[in-house]
Amino acid sequence: MRMFDIIQHKRHGLELTDEEIAFFVKNFTAGNIADYQASALLMAICCNGMTDRETTTLTLEMMNSGDTIDLSRFGNCSIDKHSTGGVGDKTTLIIAPVVSSLGGKMAKMSGRGLGHTGGTVDKLESIPGYKTSISPEEFLDIVDEHGVCVIGQSGDLAPADKKIYALRDVTATIDAVPLICSSIMSKKLAAGAKNIVLDVKVGSGAFMKTIEDARLLAEKMISVGESLGRNVRALVTNMDLPLGNAIGNSLEVIEAVEVLKGRKKGDIYDICVELSANLVSMFKEITYEEARKMVIEVIDNGTAYNKMKEWVASQGGDVSTLDDTSKLSGNELKREIVAEKNCFIGAMNAEGIGVAAGLTGAGRQTKADVLDLYAGIYLNKKTGDRIEKGDVIATIYASTEEKLDLAEKKFMESITFSSEKPSKPQLIF
Amino acid sequence: MRMFDIIQHKRHGLELTDEEIAFFVKNFTAGNIADYQASALLMAICCNGMTDRETTTLTLEMMNSGDTIDLSRFGNCSIDKHSTGGVGDKTTLIIAPVVSSLGGKMAKMSGRGLGHTGGTVDKLESIPGYKTSISPEEFLDIVDEHGVCVIGQSGDLAPADKKIYALRDVTATIDAVPLICSSIMSKKLAAGAKNIVLDVKVGSGAFMKTIEDARLLAEKMISVGESLGRNVRALVTNMDLPLGNAIGNSLEVIEAVEVLKGRKKGDIYDICVELSANLVSMFKEITYEEARKMVIEVIDNGTAYNKMKEWVASQGGDVSTLDDTSKLSGNELKREIVAEKNCFIGAMNAEGIGVAAGLTGAGRQTKADVLDLYAGIYLNKKTGDRIEKGDVIATIYASTEEKLDLAEKKFMESITFSSEKPSKPQLIF
Repeated sequence: MRMFDIIQHKRHGLELTDEEIAFFVKNFTAGNIADYQASALLMAICCNGMTDRETTTLTLEMMNSGDTIDLSRFGNCSIDKHSTGGVGDKTTLIIAPVVSSLGGKMAKMSGRGLGHTGGTVDKLESIPGYKTSISPEEFLDIVDEHGVCVIGQSGDLAPADKKIYALRDVTATIDAVPLICSSIMSKKLAAGAKNIVLDVKVGSGAFMKTIEDARLLAEKMISVGESLGRNVRALVTNMDLPLGNAIGNSLEVIEAVEVLKGRKKGDIYDICVELSANLVSMFKEITYEEARKMVIEVIDNGTAYNKMKEWVASQGGDVSTLDDTSKLSGNELKREIVAEKNCFIGAMNAEGIGVAAGLTGAGRQTKADVLDLYAGIYLNKKTGDRIEKGDVIATIYASTEEKLDLAEKKFMESITFSSEKPSKPQLIF
Repeated sequence: MRMFDIIQHKRHGLELTDEEIAFFVKNFTAGNIADYQASALLMAICCNGMTDRETTTLTLEMMNSGDTIDLSRFGNCSIDKHSTGGVGDKTTLIIAPVVSSLGGKMAKMSGRGLGHTGGTVDKLESIPGYKTSISPEEFLDIVDEHGVCVIGQSGDLAPADKKIYALRDVTATIDAVPLICSSIMSKKLAAGAKNIVLDVKVGSGAFMKTIEDARLLAEKMISVGESLGRNVRALVTNMDLPLGNAIGNSLEVIEAVEVLKGRKKGDIYDICVELSANLVSMFKEITYEEARKMVIEVIDNGTAYNKMKEWVASQGGDVSTLDDTSKLSGNELKREIVAEKNCFIGAMNAEGIGVAAGLTGAGRQTKADVLDLYAGIYLNKKTGDRIEKGDVIATIYASTEEKLDLAEKKFMESITFSSEKPSKPQLIF
């Protein structure tokens, strides 16, 4: 078998065989195929697509290119959740205790933030003492005992994806459904959970710019996951504007705690209830409506908040900071953005606001950047909200005036004002 | 400007700007763009095509990536001919003296053979003494005095094409009209002739497998050449079977001499008359019919043959070998392929027969191979010919029995026999 012929077949719109796909993944991962041949194949896939069978095989081969985690000890109860990436997305912090308090087993490896999106591991590290690096055995033991453990990436999950993604990133072959699908699902499947809920973001702050594309990606990921023996559901949700009000690591932990304490509703509450209810419905094999009632109940009666404290404590975190979240603030400078006239927030550009939050020190431009865990932006108002002259639209936290200036400038470029009341953005499509 | 964005634009089916195309050609030739980015762009071009303007700009930038030859001293009379490559194609050897005997100025750089196709320079080197390497000044002086000079590639014509072609060759991005067009035309235009005739081959022995594709390529090449100020015409001709009867270097020189001596008609004569008449009509600015009469006349009255001798002598070749072509044979072994029954030649696979000729020693597998200039195959019969039991179908010439065996085996795999008389293949479409 020759890589040349594989490229030629896809270039001419043919369906690749399982053997051809396996040959490519194995040999590219092993360094036996040149980048220039791999990028030609990736571009041909972008242009000519892949069938469901091809996408499933590609995902399977990428999953099997490295370690896979065995969660069989948790039977049907292992759960995982994946978001395609957004601004202000702290849903894992909320879903993990909600679902584990109902018997779910969430052994989750999360990522760090890069570019305009944040990462769950960074957020958790703003809790003093919280350990994100734990041995594989202890990781599973904690899940066994407490139902949840969230750590950083460890082991060598889907190394084929790392190599392929790095090449896609520089050859304009990112935004192709079969490639996005296999990239996400190879890692999710290698992580071992039986029940997976996917949050496919659509809008200005997401890869997927249209609802149709997002739905297509969601359907493909469900199809691939189900073909490979997992229960998979997906929501398509709005990332035209940030999720919730807080953007920044400790700011988002505080917001998650507020939701779990039952003090905060709105988009972040709604989306966490939806995602959690789908997971509970899957692993308990009950209806969505039954699961939804249970989810709301464990938030309302404090069970989920107590589970969060149990979880954080089990990973070494100082739970007093959750009871008194004022302890989760540093010595940040603070700048309030004040409305100059009576009007409405017309639109928010999620990516722009994510970049603005990054400029406060809350995000990384390169992997080597050190984060300011207390910096960020709190949105007092969001798209569609009425504002009176003098109202605080947003509050920016950073360590220097210079960072506040940079973040404010970018933030102001990322919102528009309107004299007419715009319709409230839809959260879930 | 970033290469990433250029790839992205073509991947999304956009038309590239002149600046984007120039950026790619200049920076890839200079080694500033990675092969994996270039191959992604080439594949996107294969899949999404290029407009005539894009193809013209690509050709122009590739042409200007290296040396260009100034033939302005020959005014409107400079001529060139290009074939997209075939088996048994010795047309340059015939057209050059025909057209120069009528006042055309052919300053031609030709290639060497590789794979299943032969090269004009190799063929000419089978004439003892013929020099294919001559200084640029002497090259143009010979054209000035004798109207024709044919040498090997010299200078650095279209280095961008060399780099791009090498990458296309290993990434399955050869067979795309805009890329083939720019590859051929960048070199032809750099070679400087005002009047160009193109012989676009179609069939089993050619890049282009269908008449539609060949016509499309011909139209694109004419469009690009005319846009850049040249007179261009193109024929689409049959390469389902070899051209003429001789395949091999000195064998083809002998066949060309036979045509110029007025002793041989058939497909090779017809195609040379067509190509020559088109060139003469262009540089003399007369009708095709007038030009055709002149071409036939200079062959019939010996003027063209005398011009061949003048040309060969001017480049140091021994013209006595043309008057007595038996001097153009080495000490080859010879094997006659004899018909075993009465039937017809059903089909010949031109590529297969080209490979068979290569196995005699007449062709190269790699650039380093040394040719046997006297080896090759003479086709006594061609597609559609009636054969009686005992007739010689073909004669193979090689230096060893082993080579004869290999060539015979491949030759026999490349022809089919038929009990029904097949229609004679069409030569020009």
